[in-house]
Amino acid sequence: MKASIFRDDFMLQSAMAVRLYHGYAAPQPIIDYHNHLPPAEIAANRQFANLAEIWLKGDHYKWRAMRTLAVPESLITGEAPDEEKFRAWAACLPHTLRNPLFHWSQLELLRIFGEDRYLNPETADSIYSRCNELLQTPEFSARGLMEKFKVELAGTTDDPCDNLEHHRAMAASGGSLRVIPTFRPDKALNIGQKDAFFEYLDRLELAAGMDIRSFDDLLEALQRRMDYFDEQGCRMSDHGLTQLPMPARLSREEQAEFRAFLASHGARPFSNPAAFCGHLLSALCELYHRKGWVQQFHLGAMRNNNSRLLRLLGADAGVDSIGDYPQAASLSAFLDALDQRGCLAKTILYNLNPADNEVFATMCGNFSGGTQKGWVQFGSGWWFLDQKDGMERQLNTLSYLGILSTFIGMTTDSRSFLSWPRHEYFRRVLCNLLGQDVEQGLLPDDEQWLGGMVADICYHNIKAYIGI
Amino acid sequence: MKASIFRDDFMLQSAMAVRLYHGYAAPQPIIDYHNHLPPAEIAANRQFANLAEIWLKGDHYKWRAMRTLAVPESLITGEAPDEEKFRAWAACLPHTLRNPLFHWSQLELLRIFGEDRYLNPETADSIYSRCNELLQTPEFSARGLMEKFKVELAGTTDDPCDNLEHHRAMAASGGSLRVIPTFRPDKALNIGQKDAFFEYLDRLELAAGMDIRSFDDLLEALQRRMDYFDEQGCRMSDHGLTQLPMPARLSREEQAEFRAFLASHGARPFSNPAAFCGHLLSALCELYHRKGWVQQFHLGAMRNNNSRLLRLLGADAGVDSIGDYPQAASLSAFLDALDQRGCLAKTILYNLNPADNEVFATMCGNFSGGTQKGWVQFGSGWWFLDQKDGMERQLNTLSYLGILSTFIGMTTDSRSFLSWPRHEYFRRVLCNLLGQDVEQGLLPDDEQWLGGMVADICYHNIKAYIGI
Amino acid sequence: MKASIFRDDFMLQSAMAVRLYHGYAAPQPIIDYHNHLPPAEIAANRQFANLAEIWLKGDHYKWRAMRTLAVPESLITGEAPDEEKFRAWAACLPHTLRNPLFHWSQLELLRIFGEDRYLNPETADSIYSRCNELLQTPEFSARGLMEKFKVELAGTTDDPCDNLEHHRAMAASGGSLRVIPTFRPDKALNIGQKDAFFEYLDRLELAAGMDIRSFDDLLEALQRRMDYFDEQGCRMSDHGLTQLPMPARLSREEQAEFRAFLASHGARPFSNPAAFCGHLLSALCELYHRKGWVQQFHLGAMRNNNSRLLRLLGADAGVDSIGDYPQAASLSAFLDALDQRGCLAKTILYNLNPADNEVFATMCGNFSGGTQKGWVQFGSGWWFLDQKDGMERQLNTLSYLGILSTFIGMTTDSRSFLSWPRHEYFRRVLCNLLGQDVEQGLLPDDEQWLGGMVADICYHNIKAYIGI
Repeated sequence: MKASIFRDDFMLQSAMAVRLYHGYAAPQPIIDYHNHLPPAEIAANRQFANLAEIWLKGDHYKWRAMRTLAVPESLITGEAPDEEKFRAWAACLPHTLRNPLFHWSQLELLRIFGEDRYLNPETADSIYSRCNELLQTPEFSARGLMEKFKVELAGTTDDPCDNLEHHRAMAASGGSLRVIPTFRPDKALNIGQKDAFFEYLDRLELAAGMDIRSFDDLLEALQRRMDYFDEQGCRMSDHGLTQLPMPARLSREEQAEFRAFLASHGARPFSNPAAFCGHLLSALCELYHRKGWVQQFHLGAMRNNNSRLLRLLGADAGVDSIGDYPQAASLSAFLDALDQRGCLAKTILYNLNPADNEVFATMCGNFSGGTQKGWVQFGSGWWFLDQKDGMERQLNTLSYLGILSTFIGMTTDSRSFLSWPRHEYFRRVLCNLLGQDVEQGLLPDDEQWLGGMVADICYHNIKAYIGI
Repeated sequence: MKASIFRDDFMLQSAMAVRLYHGYAAPQPIIDYHNHLPPAEIAANRQFANLAEIWLKGDHYKWRAMRTLAVPESLITGEAPDEEKFRAWAACLPHTLRNPLFHWSQLELLRIFGEDRYLNPETADSIYSRCNELLQTPEFSARGLMEKFKVELAGTTDDPCDNLEHHRAMAASGGSLRVIPTFRPDKALNIGQKDAFFEYLDRLELAAGMDIRSFDDLLEALQRRMDYFDEQGCRMSDHGLTQLPMPARLSREEQAEFRAFLASHGARPFSNPAAFCGHLLSALCELYHRKGWVQQFHLGAMRNNNSRLLRLLGADAGVDSIGDYPQAASLSAFLDALDQRGCLAKTILYNLNPADNEVFATMCGNFSGGTQKGWVQFGSGWWFLDQKDGMERQLNTLSYLGILSTFIGMTTDSRSFLSWPRHEYFRRVLCNLLGQDVEQGLLPDDEQWLGGMVADICYHNIKAYIGI
Repeated sequence: MKASIFRDDFMLQSAMAVRLYHGYAAPQPIIDYHNHLPPAEIAANRQFANLAEIWLKGDHYKWRAMRTLAVPESLITGEAPDEEKFRAWAACLPHTLRNPLFHWSQLELLRIFGEDRYLNPETADSIYSRCNELLQTPEFSARGLMEKFKVELAGTTDDPCDNLEHHRAMAASGGSLRVIPTFRPDKALNIGQKDAFFEYLDRLELAAGMDIRSFDDLLEALQRRMDYFDEQGCRMSDHGLTQLPMPARLSREEQAEFRAFLASHGARPFSNPAAFCGHLLSALCELYHRKGWVQQFHLGAMRNNNSRLLRLLGADAGVDSIGDYPQAASLSAFLDALDQRGCLAKTILYNLNPADNEVFATMCGNFSGGTQKGWVQFGSGWWFLDQKDGMERQLNTLSYLGILSTFIGMTTDSRSFLSWPRHEYFRRVLCNLLGQDVEQGLLPDDEQWLGGMVADICYHNIKAYIGI
């Protein structure tokens, strides 16, 4: 294999695309408003032991690929030494052609480590030791990498019980990088998994400094945590759900049943979990609106399909897939109920099944308005869809059924400190689509006009949207 | 921004596409077999006061876009003067890049008003006053515009209670333009909205000149109106539904319950609305078949999602979206039940969710046959899908899973007298797809053969299909 | 119409595509692991009377197209002489442009009969008589055709009651062509159609040499037939279902009810057919795993939509369509239940609704692992999707969401001895996608690397997968 594919015009198939990318997209700083980076590691400015640790650990995308390529689990998530795991991955990568892993992996090696060789069994050891050396230098620490990629803001994803000590430490220490927490109370809604639910309520009682004996108590505890998050710079919430619930209101009887459910630690399962979820989420959304936060919903994943691996490895083991849940009815009803009460916060809807892209893109338009363009956003391609085809489909559907120019653009949603080049990737995809349209005579050949939109989508829109 | 993008070869990316469009598509007159033009305005040959009136009023596509761009409602549907609304729209248009509104709007300005400038805040006043002047001339009257675009036939959409006075007046006055009514009895099927249902029955009793005290009465009243519509030149019916109902037959008990329901003005809700709808629609379809009409079904929309704006503005306020209803089972059962009884009329199925395109395209093939090619049609891209991508996907799916050469082509489905250039747009899309295939060696390089098919799809097929 | 479109570079739009196809794909023999060829005709090395017999008889794809083109049923499936039916088809073919029938038909004429003229009413008689002459020669016998196309293995589809006499005869006679049976027990699962179910059980009792008085008996009878199939070289099973069932286990009471159901010949319908199906299929799948077979599931078809034609012509009459069944939940639960018990056989999931491609492609990854790469396969485009667009979408989705290099590639699923060129077609599509990616700078320009993957997908992967 010869020269790297990542030339200056990588994915830029027209002169206009090249001009848009290099003139308007690439210069923008990164606002990575939603990710899963560990705040502790940013705060401590973690230095990584080796390439396996920073690149393979916890990366369930790679794990899936390795399983499909019949690599033994010991070399994926098991006991094998880091170096062997890295060699196993190096043997797999050449077989991932056309999967986003091939592009992501090689692009990360190049942009982060300046490594333009293809990773394979022959280059594995040399690349491993070279990268490991670099990883010992300050430029390759957690924050060093973020500086290199001009990350201006990172939005982490945090449990309401979290004391946000690392966010506080970072805010106190100053510096140009802003790391803000995101309020993600999934566990408080998950009444169906009884043990985990009560264990979580114990933690929440502690964090909020109050007893939780009723639905109102639960809500108040969460609200106290919201107040605290807000003080620490939080501007967004997030929920991971198969679908939005139908809006609901627990009746007096159901509220009484819920008190008994709490008192008995779930001696009997709560009879109407859908109403609990619909009521609690609606109430939370009202509070998000009151705070001026942005609410995010990640919808459509079918998680933990392989219960053997779930038991073995826990969640996020690479055994999740795209679901085919009905989305439109509850999206409509839930957002409408908030809008009717005048308390629909700015909202980002992320969709995992591309067959539903049209439903999501059109639903956003029904509840836009107010003082901020693009009030309800059709979020960027997420998880399985965070790749060229997924991005293009999201951008195209948004374009044809919504207003692309109001889009707040890309976020990595990543757990890794090596994912920053995905912003480059997204920006190239975006510029390429616009350039193609110009090439085909579908858009005016007006660099400034198009460039302004590109800069908005890559940077300015999200700044205005979250108000920073 | 420079020269207009709408050159002669706009969207025609190959030499064959250019030849097909200019030689076989463009020369064809327009048969706009389904639209929502107001018959009164055609009959009266309405002259429009200004560009806001003819272009923005009632155009909920533009309203949606303006809301997403955070324009205050007063400048969209509110009290603001026409001129201010026009300026607000002019400020939005440059931000609609890649949305069909950008192409539609600029193409309409060019083809109708000869205006090749881009509309934006700088050109707004000049374009507004220039177009307003033109709108005072006879060429820009309702019928003047239709003549300019060689509209041979327009199929309006009419309530069964309508007296069709304007259609009668037009038929009496002669002239080459034919305007025929379409029978759309949605309100008679909507038993779920009690007040509107009974109000409607009152109107229907008056129109049909009979009392409606039973299901059979209701059917007879509708049949009388069908007879009248048929006399006035009607050749098609139309229904807007989320899905086709399952075929059904009200039992003797349900018929009795329905009589009581009518007698009591809905004191209690009717217990089986699905059976009512399935029975009534089946019965209507038998009558359509007997009359030799074409029946149309517009399926898949989720309407009026924003109840605040519904209350404020009524239906068609721009708060509708694409639904994700299951379609296949009832499509199959309903059409099959008619086919079994030998009374399946020619049928056009319009689908709003492109994820269902394959279901629709293959379902059509199950019930074709008889004496007319393309007996059951997969209708052209509709509403949100009436744009380049939507058209291409409909044409491609129809091609791969059905027989494209039998397709009856485009209709605007529009409320506006400025939408005629959409036929040009559709024809360019069609010719471009064929030209691309030739370019790629997928189709024989045979202009005559391809041209014949193009002319059929643009004109001849629909003429034969509705029998005019 | 001029020169044939099927040049050497047909569908190969880049230099790399040409090199990949001619250097790595075309040389591979064909392993057609799933089809519906009649074993009797292969064994007897059938010679065909004429082109209508080998080309039109039983080809419900062509029947559908002819119905859509308003050909009378007598000329499709009726009493008309072969020659007239052929003429009717010849008159239709030019109107099937862009439908796969156009490519398939002309490609078959060319590759099999060396006929490069377009079939139409003018050429019909001459092509008919020329092909008929060729059909009398040994090269055009059933096996002659398979030799010409280097078919190494054909997997037929067989009922468990079949005595496999023709497979045995072929195995005994030696020769390089291997024809293996596939175990397809659909009728044993179809408890809903009572009469057919009991008729089938009678046949199964005979074939298995035992009475079937209980669920366990039924399973044992099927197991006996599996043993027999296995001895005759069977390596795969197959099921045609709308969806996978939820995994289930009949309770003691349901087992008793099932015994009574059998004893009374279904005097009352069995109360829990879903559990019956879920239990029986799970049990069969355990046995497939024990035998080391590959299990195949063809999901998503909505069959026999037109009951008039079903009554007239039986199943497979060309009145089937793509369904919109929910797939993810039962796919996940069923495969997981097998995986948990350590008895998930190698599995191929074929999907008929392309809107579900992403669900299928991601589900496969959840249950891969073990000793064979690509343990759970997202099967190639099937039935309506066995065409350029369907293949490209399957290949692309598999690429972006799975690991393309592990794919076992194309199988015809055909009833016809003329379908062999579809492997060529698939291989061209595959090479074209890869070539395009190289052209666009998305893949390294490395012929050997890509060529190895092409050869794997066309030949080596399937050999390893079924272990021959």
